[in-house]
Amino acid sequence: MSEFDEPIERLIEYFRSLPGVGKKTAQRYAFYILENSKEKAQNFANAIVEVKEKVRLCSVCGNYSSSEICPICQKRNRKIVCVVQEPKDVVSMEKVKSFDGVYHILFGTINPLENKGPNDIRIKELLARISKDGVQEVIMATNPDVEGEATAMYIAKILKPLGVKVTRLAQGISMGSDIEFADEITLEKALKARQEI
Amino acid sequence: MSEFDEPIERLIEYFRSLPGVGKKTAQRYAFYILENSKEKAQNFANAIVEVKEKVRLCSVCGNYSSSEICPICQKRNRKIVCVVQEPKDVVSMEKVKSFDGVYHILFGTINPLENKGPNDIRIKELLARISKDGVQEVIMATNPDVEGEATAMYIAKILKPLGVKVTRLAQGISMGSDIEFADEITLEKALKARQEI
Repeated sequence: MSEFDEPIERLIEYFRSLPGVGKKTAQRYAFYILENSKEKAQNFANAIVEVKEKVRLCSVCGNYSSSEICPICQKRNRKIVCVVQEPKDVVSMEKVKSFDGVYHILFGTINPLENKGPNDIRIKELLARISKDGVQEVIMATNPDVEGEATAMYIAKILKPLGVKVTRLAQGISMGSDIEFADEITLEKALKARQEI
Repeated sequence: MSEFDEPIERLIEYFRSLPGVGKKTAQRYAFYILENSKEKAQNFANAIVEVKEKVRLCSVCGNYSSSEICPICQKRNRKIVCVVQEPKDVVSMEKVKSFDGVYHILFGTINPLENKGPNDIRIKELLARISKDGVQEVIMATNPDVEGEATAMYIAKILKPLGVKVTRLAQGISMGSDIEFADEITLEKALKARQEI
């Protein structure tokens, strides 16, 4: 009899489907809903439905937006484009307050193991922006792993003949990290990219 | 511009209201909803609303139930009642497969600091069950902290004159724990309750 009633069990299952949520956490979330008002539950439910109804992809960068063109693409310098893998990477990049350019979301990387080729991510859309917006620089901010690197190299190869400057986020040791625990690839990259002080 | 669009921001806020969920986790949950189908979002939303519509409190034990009397109270021995603070404690107790009794949920403890007296938790309902179900034993399974102990003592004092056996979960060192790190109160209780082997 460790089972819950059907409606509770179903809600727990939905919470469990969220990333990183286990059985125990899902139970806590479900109990939270049970403990709170009907009105709050209804509003929560509405927020979930609404986000799917109102939010679409920005026609310029591909990021989630409730208007045809997202606020970032509307206001900022479209001649500098930072290419990222996922919308959540935009959230991280936006912490850098000094960046005034716009983004381009690939929604993935080229990944042969997952059968994802260049046509499965938004490369075509990136090429279309180059001439349309007179893009001067494309900053590749894909992840520093095998797929991210390969995707950055692939895109750079296509863009360079078009006369676009293509750059990559610098790699090296992180602020506040410990050299003792840095992996050898990171240390090697940091050494190669060393700068005079 | 680290802000999201209004509908996304609202959904993030609702996820943030869940227990133990911070900004970053709430964002991940919201992106998960965005990445998945409209149908899944709708079903998730329905599950939240449904749980509030269908689930009420069992008229016997007070636990969440979609029927007037919960499955545990329907099938098991009502003469042995295990008293717990919250519905989630039932989930934990139910891991003990050998327990065949029923539960009584107090929904809290007596807590002067929070202005909660005996009338603010379900003690009256517990008393009503004693004669009605011919209860023989009440097992106090409130938490082993100041409020839980005080509440257990208070209830025991009321029940004993009625001829009911009142017991308390044993306290001592946990299985798999380390005596080196046990606190002195736990060790003292474990020493007092020592048993011959």
